[in-house]
Amino acid sequence: MTTIAVDAMGGDHAPQSEVEGALLAAREHGVRVLLVGQEDVLRAELARHKTDGLPVEVLAASQVIAMGENPIRALRKKRDSSLHVAARAAQEGRADGVVTAGNTGAAMAIVKTALGMLPGVDRPALASVFPTKRGTPSVLLDVGANVDCKPQHLQQFAIMGEVYYRVMFGEPRPRVGLLSIGEEASKGNEVVRETHRRLKESSLSFDFVGNVEGRDVYTGEVHVVVCDGFIGNVALKISEGLVDALVSMLKEALGSTLSAKVGSLLSRQAYENFKKRVDYTESGGVPLLGIKGVCVICHGRSNANAIKNAIRVAADFSSRGINEKIERDLALAAAK
Amino acid sequence: MTTIAVDAMGGDHAPQSEVEGALLAAREHGVRVLLVGQEDVLRAELARHKTDGLPVEVLAASQVIAMGENPIRALRKKRDSSLHVAARAAQEGRADGVVTAGNTGAAMAIVKTALGMLPGVDRPALASVFPTKRGTPSVLLDVGANVDCKPQHLQQFAIMGEVYYRVMFGEPRPRVGLLSIGEEASKGNEVVRETHRRLKESSLSFDFVGNVEGRDVYTGEVHVVVCDGFIGNVALKISEGLVDALVSMLKEALGSTLSAKVGSLLSRQAYENFKKRVDYTESGGVPLLGIKGVCVICHGRSNANAIKNAIRVAADFSSRGINEKIERDLALAAAK
Repeated sequence: MTTIAVDAMGGDHAPQSEVEGALLAAREHGVRVLLVGQEDVLRAELARHKTDGLPVEVLAASQVIAMGENPIRALRKKRDSSLHVAARAAQEGRADGVVTAGNTGAAMAIVKTALGMLPGVDRPALASVFPTKRGTPSVLLDVGANVDCKPQHLQQFAIMGEVYYRVMFGEPRPRVGLLSIGEEASKGNEVVRETHRRLKESSLSFDFVGNVEGRDVYTGEVHVVVCDGFIGNVALKISEGLVDALVSMLKEALGSTLSAKVGSLLSRQAYENFKKRVDYTESGGVPLLGIKGVCVICHGRSNANAIKNAIRVAADFSSRGINEKIERDLALAAAK
Repeated sequence: MTTIAVDAMGGDHAPQSEVEGALLAAREHGVRVLLVGQEDVLRAELARHKTDGLPVEVLAASQVIAMGENPIRALRKKRDSSLHVAARAAQEGRADGVVTAGNTGAAMAIVKTALGMLPGVDRPALASVFPTKRGTPSVLLDVGANVDCKPQHLQQFAIMGEVYYRVMFGEPRPRVGLLSIGEEASKGNEVVRETHRRLKESSLSFDFVGNVEGRDVYTGEVHVVVCDGFIGNVALKISEGLVDALVSMLKEALGSTLSAKVGSLLSRQAYENFKKRVDYTESGGVPLLGIKGVCVICHGRSNANAIKNAIRVAADFSSRGINEKIERDLALAAAK
């Protein structure tokens, strides 16, 4: 049985979402969960649920890292934080992966330090899943682990993203694009132009389609979109902001007249289906690719459903041997 | 009467959209329009409309620049293109501004070469208007005129964007933010951190709120968001792709069952209002700030409504003296 260590003190709704999400994951996906955090708090929260024999256990950690806390300070000073204890459980083989909705910077620093990097990876990358018009998901990476990336980093992101997509979504030959501001190879900034040249020249085992534009993240024409973490993070946050604004404008419009109100009541189920398709809590968090282990990072405002899905993704990531495949493909690319 | 030269050969729907848009602008906004392009084509298109005394004239240009054409080649070789002739009309004072839905790169190169830059501006910036949750518009710049910007360029963009917003939207004290991946001054890449420091230290006459995140483009919390043209272009295209995907998912959901269909019929007017709020054709194109003159660039797929609104924006830009104000504010900032 796969075991996932969940930082139960990190998110905006911790520990409620984490505890409920853990119980859902154990029940629906047969995953064993270690809830990491302050023991009394977690036992009290667990007591509010029917846990009837589910493989959910508490792993004690006395300290809590706050959302705004400096990641490097947290890494060095809070050695008994829920994140440290969860990462150590993974390092020592007592867990197959870590899930957290806490301080992203601290999570990356702590997990990277505890587990180390895969051979051939200079920097890890956060890979975010987006819904597309075509129905298939798309993966954008990096969405915030690194700023000021070099071409060699982006090249590694391409290889890692392709493996992740192929294994997790069962697409035998994912199409990989490089995010730029025009499809021609000459378009983009210096780093993008150099990365384009490298990806074209290195006879990779996958489909590199060349440059793609921002809109392609949502068309489904490509499966994996590669970019620097600064740009990826802006893309992610822009999308969140836009979905939020559109839903609120739509709600306003639909409440404006009686016939609009009646209409929206009749189409309520359709809205629910629509909202489910664009709901980030369904995507299962953002895996940190490139580390020697498994870590899935969730949005701070994650609810139980988001935590449950992230635990499922972390368990699949581990059991499907994604890291072994990334390691092999990076070695192959380097040998060419 | 303000006169705007419209490149009537440039867009995906040229010259139909351009001719119809010109007539609408002349009728609704009292603007005189010079339609620039192949005379026989334009006269034939004009003959399909009732022009009854409207101040719309044809200015002959024998060459056409294609969408995919190399901008520098077009600048040098096609001296009698509709873009060149329109830019010369502005240069010689026969027009107060230029509007085009054609090749963006060529438009920027030709207009910049013909008109020159305002004193104190190193690079021009494209300023795009977005709808926000709050109802007030927001302006993001640069959305694609420059990649690999330096801090001094971003600082100039902040000053130009603030003037544009203040004058065009009548907001006495616009709030200006710097696009980054976290609100703390320490967040972002090297260029952003240095720009942040400069904007904080230079006692500008406006409200610099510090770093903002991608989602703030759509919240309406800030009025002007400053970024490098690579990131801004990705943000713009991501938004276009997402709106397109969401509208198509929503349509699919609303056609899925009978009650959803009936519901959507009843709320049709509400949808129309919603769509109008997010419709890019209402925003009136993207002005190129920093040049010694007025140029508004439209989406290639612009319809007549988009062209009409761009002509209105170009006329307002000219008559409200935005360039004089930008020049003054840049000089003030340099003197401090």
